[in-house]
Amino acid sequence: MSPTGNDVSSSGTPAASPEAACNTGGVYYCEQLSRIHGMSLWDAWGNPSSNYEAGVKAKAIINRSRQNVARMVGGKAEDIVFTSGGTEANNLVLHTALEHFRKNCRAAGEGHVNGSNDLPHIITSNVEHDSIKLAAEHLQVDDVTFVPVSKVTACVDVEDIIDAVRPNTCLISVMLANNETGVVMPVQELCEKVKMLNKLQERIRILLHSDAAQALGKIPVDVQELGVDFLTIVGHKFYGPRIGALYVNGLGTGTPLYPMLFGGGQERNFRPGTENTPMIAGLGKAAELVTNNLSDYQSHMQNIKVYLEEQLQDVFKDKIHFNSHYPSSDVLPNTCNVSILGPALQGDVMTSLSVCLNSYVVHHTSTRPSHVLLSCGVPSEVAANALRLSVGRGTTKADVDTVVEDLRETVQLLEKMN
Amino acid sequence: MSPTGNDVSSSGTPAASPEAACNTGGVYYCEQLSRIHGMSLWDAWGNPSSNYEAGVKAKAIINRSRQNVARMVGGKAEDIVFTSGGTEANNLVLHTALEHFRKNCRAAGEGHVNGSNDLPHIITSNVEHDSIKLAAEHLQVDDVTFVPVSKVTACVDVEDIIDAVRPNTCLISVMLANNETGVVMPVQELCEKVKMLNKLQERIRILLHSDAAQALGKIPVDVQELGVDFLTIVGHKFYGPRIGALYVNGLGTGTPLYPMLFGGGQERNFRPGTENTPMIAGLGKAAELVTNNLSDYQSHMQNIKVYLEEQLQDVFKDKIHFNSHYPSSDVLPNTCNVSILGPALQGDVMTSLSVCLNSYVVHHTSTRPSHVLLSCGVPSEVAANALRLSVGRGTTKADVDTVVEDLRETVQLLEKMN
Ligand SMILES: Cc1ncc(COP(=O)(O)O)c(C=O)c1O
Ligand SMILES: Cc1ncc(COP(=O)(O)O)c(C=O)c1O
Repeated sequence: MSPTGNDVSSSGTPAASPEAACNTGGVYYCEQLSRIHGMSLWDAWGNPSSNYEAGVKAKAIINRSRQNVARMVGGKAEDIVFTSGGTEANNLVLHTALEHFRKNCRAAGEGHVNGSNDLPHIITSNVEHDSIKLAAEHLQVDDVTFVPVSKVTACVDVEDIIDAVRPNTCLISVMLANNETGVVMPVQELCEKVKMLNKLQERIRILLHSDAAQALGKIPVDVQELGVDFLTIVGHKFYGPRIGALYVNGLGTGTPLYPMLFGGGQERNFRPGTENTPMIAGLGKAAELVTNNLSDYQSHMQNIKVYLEEQLQDVFKDKIHFNSHYPSSDVLPNTCNVSILGPALQGDVMTSLSVCLNSYVVHHTSTRPSHVLLSCGVPSEVAANALRLSVGRGTTKADVDTVVEDLRETVQLLEKMN
Repeated sequence: MSPTGNDVSSSGTPAASPEAACNTGGVYYCEQLSRIHGMSLWDAWGNPSSNYEAGVKAKAIINRSRQNVARMVGGKAEDIVFTSGGTEANNLVLHTALEHFRKNCRAAGEGHVNGSNDLPHIITSNVEHDSIKLAAEHLQVDDVTFVPVSKVTACVDVEDIIDAVRPNTCLISVMLANNETGVVMPVQELCEKVKMLNKLQERIRILLHSDAAQALGKIPVDVQELGVDFLTIVGHKFYGPRIGALYVNGLGTGTPLYPMLFGGGQERNFRPGTENTPMIAGLGKAAELVTNNLSDYQSHMQNIKVYLEEQLQDVFKDKIHFNSHYPSSDVLPNTCNVSILGPALQGDVMTSLSVCLNSYVVHHTSTRPSHVLLSCGVPSEVAANALRLSVGRGTTKADVDTVVEDLRETVQLLEKMN
């Protein structure tokens, strides 16, 4: 670390308790910046021990953050690797699965695993985030099977996945909860079945991954219960900063992780690059809040969502369709995906008019019906009108009333204009 | 973007001028966080247009930041891709060079380029950062040539690099300034020569990369003058946040860039993942400051460094050796790398004693002499005592006096204890 702060290495992070750093989120970062700007050789050398301490404290903050993130998912601190986000974490898992296959092919000689293809096979669902879907499509694989979710439950069927397994299958990746429907997937059951396969057959071990980006902070997530090898963690989905982490069960010992980047040795070489200490601190605090308050968050969001859906039903009667209601499927407590039916209310019209009207913002509309909703059995004319409304930790019933009234007026206007 | 802010997508960034966002660095991020925490459905829906505007403003902030980063290096905004840091930017260049070679091999048929090997060859120097060195060593290449720097000038010789070129050379990567010695490399001359090669021979185009992590903010850097295809930019080396960027000359048109990550389409698919808007804003501001004030920063640092070196010379007389002084080589204005000679003052002793003494912090000591200094011709017993002292924008002569006195006392103590 430079005594003049012109090189903000991790050891140059100003001393601050993780709480202070995290509670204030960016203020910590701001203080750091201003400190850097005003910092002089004297600051660092005149009172140098504080600076050396700051290095130790930065490490302590990172480690504490690692512990908090681990605790949130029921794992060990040493099994957490910080990444730049969910996209990187998901890509890293796919990269690892490929390398894992390659290494084991070579070990098995002749580049073949039980007479199977030279290239690996990957299984995932057809409703994954693009950082799984597109990454899988870009890999040098034998094949990627996108197992379709049921058009009735919007959920993948564990048996369908098991049926898709081939001798060269090296990875199964199924998200814990879908970002559009909120539907929770049977990851635990899946892991149990796959582990039996892994035990029974003399084959390459199938690695198990779940992208928990949407589930964390909304429902309990425990890596031990789930039985996953990898879990993707995304800060900004649970009120944390825009970085992420990857949980790896027995990192480097029980489960392989092949780095995509090489460099200065940070994150035990699994993910080098100068640590983003302030963001890591924020991630740890956000995780701690989830660990301590999840059941409150969850029941609050659930109550408000139920109220929101009741009000919407009341106002729009049979003109409303809930794209996040599926018989026998669990749905995240925050996610409400609705279509208000009618040709005047299609996505693109909604988006542009909502802007003109200056009256509300929709979470998600698109000019084309979402492929995820279509995959979940939502008819295309319904999917074309989809609005995703998410409730949060601070949303009140009064907020809901305002929103519903706002929506009622807008819909009225849109229908008149048409 | 969720109206409850539980999903901080780029379009959900609160409205703020780029200046406000950047000047306060993390405060912006903090405001965003608190906004998210306190945000209600009402906030987002009751006054929704502000939220829609916020999305537009977030994009505007990112674009303005892109312009500022581009201006700092003399390039075009559309040629800048934001990355998580310098490590990622450097790895991305190496990855691109490999893909570039593969694609061109295939295009040329039979997997051969002018009868050369199936695998590419890469040239770099022997004093690069580990994010080039180790990444190159991990690539599936025919060979990596680490051209040694001169033991007299600590600089690579352009002719040595040209001599190392083979028919399958696809990339030459030479840092603009070394992080330990501060020595500035002849990148411009190198690019000129290589471009002539690229023109003359019917061969795969050799891509040109320079890691400008250490040079930016200290000396003028102009991608047009240099003639590079790629330039690595690292925020925290010029008082910015811990993210980075890659300049690509004619991104996707003039020069290829093959993404390492796949996902939600951000950064025109070259680098997907939810944009880290607050950090990007900070990077833009840091770049703007460099563009506007570089000559002041540079002359201030240079003056203070000269004063520091004079004082050190005065105090330590012939017991001092400057590891950042090389005949006929330019050195960054901030970097002072010294060894105070004597067996009592070896790196590890210095480090541990400096901690005990609570009296100062050294930028860099290590238990083993730095391989970079050894490569630059510094004798191993001198390299073992190396201390890197960097001066900054705010360092004063009074700071220097304190430091030098502190160092004098510490050295005295160390020598007595031995
Ligand atoms: C389910 C899911 N996975 C992964 C990601 C990617 O996260 P990031 O954009 O932070 O890289 C997202 C983000 O939108 C997501 O919803
Ligand atoms: C010359 C050089 N290149 C690249 C890097 C890597 O930057 P980061 O650690 O931000 O990924 C560094 C950082 O120390 C460096 O000094």
